[in-house]
Amino acid sequence: MALDLAAIRAAHDRIRSYIHRTPVLTSERLDNAAGGSLFFKCDNFQKVGAFKARGATNAVFALDEKTASRGVATHSSGNHAAALSRAAKLRGIPAHIVMPSNSAKVKVRAVEGYGGKIIFCEPNERAREETCSRVIGETGATLIHPFENENVMAGQGTIMVELLQDISDLDMVLCPVGGGGLLSGVAVAAKTLRPSIRVIATEPAGAADAAESFRGKKLVRLDHKNTIADGLRTNLGVPNFAVVRDYVDEIVVVSEESIIAAMRAIWETMKIVIEPSAAVVYAAILEKKVEPRGKRVGLILTGGNVDLDALPWTKN
Amino acid sequence: MALDLAAIRAAHDRIRSYIHRTPVLTSERLDNAAGGSLFFKCDNFQKVGAFKARGATNAVFALDEKTASRGVATHSSGNHAAALSRAAKLRGIPAHIVMPSNSAKVKVRAVEGYGGKIIFCEPNERAREETCSRVIGETGATLIHPFENENVMAGQGTIMVELLQDISDLDMVLCPVGGGGLLSGVAVAAKTLRPSIRVIATEPAGAADAAESFRGKKLVRLDHKNTIADGLRTNLGVPNFAVVRDYVDEIVVVSEESIIAAMRAIWETMKIVIEPSAAVVYAAILEKKVEPRGKRVGLILTGGNVDLDALPWTKN
Repeated sequence: MALDLAAIRAAHDRIRSYIHRTPVLTSERLDNAAGGSLFFKCDNFQKVGAFKARGATNAVFALDEKTASRGVATHSSGNHAAALSRAAKLRGIPAHIVMPSNSAKVKVRAVEGYGGKIIFCEPNERAREETCSRVIGETGATLIHPFENENVMAGQGTIMVELLQDISDLDMVLCPVGGGGLLSGVAVAAKTLRPSIRVIATEPAGAADAAESFRGKKLVRLDHKNTIADGLRTNLGVPNFAVVRDYVDEIVVVSEESIIAAMRAIWETMKIVIEPSAAVVYAAILEKKVEPRGKRVGLILTGGNVDLDALPWTKN
Repeated sequence: MALDLAAIRAAHDRIRSYIHRTPVLTSERLDNAAGGSLFFKCDNFQKVGAFKARGATNAVFALDEKTASRGVATHSSGNHAAALSRAAKLRGIPAHIVMPSNSAKVKVRAVEGYGGKIIFCEPNERAREETCSRVIGETGATLIHPFENENVMAGQGTIMVELLQDISDLDMVLCPVGGGGLLSGVAVAAKTLRPSIRVIATEPAGAADAAESFRGKKLVRLDHKNTIADGLRTNLGVPNFAVVRDYVDEIVVVSEESIIAAMRAIWETMKIVIEPSAAVVYAAILEKKVEPRGKRVGLILTGGNVDLDALPWTKN
């Protein structure tokens, strides 16, 4: 299977009844400030509070009956873990979630709430991968990687199909990039459905491996990431880089200060809760890294899962 | 003019092009917790971030040309002041806003941002009323009271017309009560359009003058109000009490603790920003002051203007 529009459309048919058709919101005030027309695709309202519900659901429901019956596994501790647990529960199969023993309680509870079986491991990458391999060996479960998986990528691409169904004449679309699962799907859907569209990825300056890889035309990995946008601390994946290289026009980086200002501006003006990782797209506009003037701009808001006890503008 | 459905429909025709048709949102998770179907009418997404845009716009556009040309005035410092400033600007007339000299800067900026002319006064009720009278005497402006005004009440009632247009078969509707401008309009619209509906007002226990007035069938005023729900610290108005007495089925009171828990639950689950005054309706469900089980329940979310630097769950 290749990641193409047909795969994304098949994903959409497969998952449609399990996910929300999320709204596209606009704000006259933010339009006036930008001098263009901004269309926010709100997957902060998606099931599990993030776009991850799309890819995980597609990956789970794409499995054949026999493979599915042995369950699925992953070693994410964030939104993908919750999304995979939910999708497995919907299909009536087990989800094995390997999480570091120091995971935040709120994340543990989210996974448990969706019925995921948690296996704790030491908080380092080797332990996570070894534990995950062991679980897969013991159970026969299928690994559903959070982004290096074409069914996941195709599922994430459904967000762009919906956005273009609602707003067909976009000049550009802004999309966050972490591992690149979302960006891959969005870029393929966008460029296939509307070849004239500019696809611009936005990344925190403190985790700018994708921007560096894109510029150097060679996949680089950074070991130390420093950003509040916790969903974007991941390094760009291998199959994802291949798609990004071919389908994305530009990757811009934004500062922590702009991410926080963008998050706050969207909460205050649009009255919606978005997480820091979702704020990077509007941060690019605040920083004038893209030029929205006179343009119709899509912005992918990826999620709304925030710890309300630790907001970035609150002094501790 | 009487406050009736015809007045509310006329208000709707008058203001429709100046306000948002706000969405009705639902949450599977909150439905499961409540055991009923909850329909949240989201005027936190309204212009100026609150339902107040409805009543103020109706009052301003209902004025005849000559009266309007002399401007409007009020002595609110909250959402009504912003809403009146915006409505006056839309009509091209001045809005004189009397505000106490110790008003929060964010409120001053909001009024200025919508073009209101601010007249500061000493921070006490006498100074506010004297200053307002003086301004009206000097300018010939029309006082637009935030709730003791039938055009304001009719404008606020449009929120219920929209809610019943979207969800026609509600069993009950929950509505906050402060001065009673919103509640008057909502109750008249609800009972006229759907006589079987139960209209339940919700009020903070720390500002329970409306509940006491309703119970004793006599309007009482409380001098000291103690609640985080700053929009509900006002005493119930005189014409408002007359409507409430005739059209409202019940007034329930909720604790500060429930208001904060309700606000937080809605932010976390629905990913929308609502102010404490809006949270009292869901607080009534959390406190089991109403029984939603098996029922279809409308909840009026009144606004989303919150100081993000002073959230109620943040320790200072």
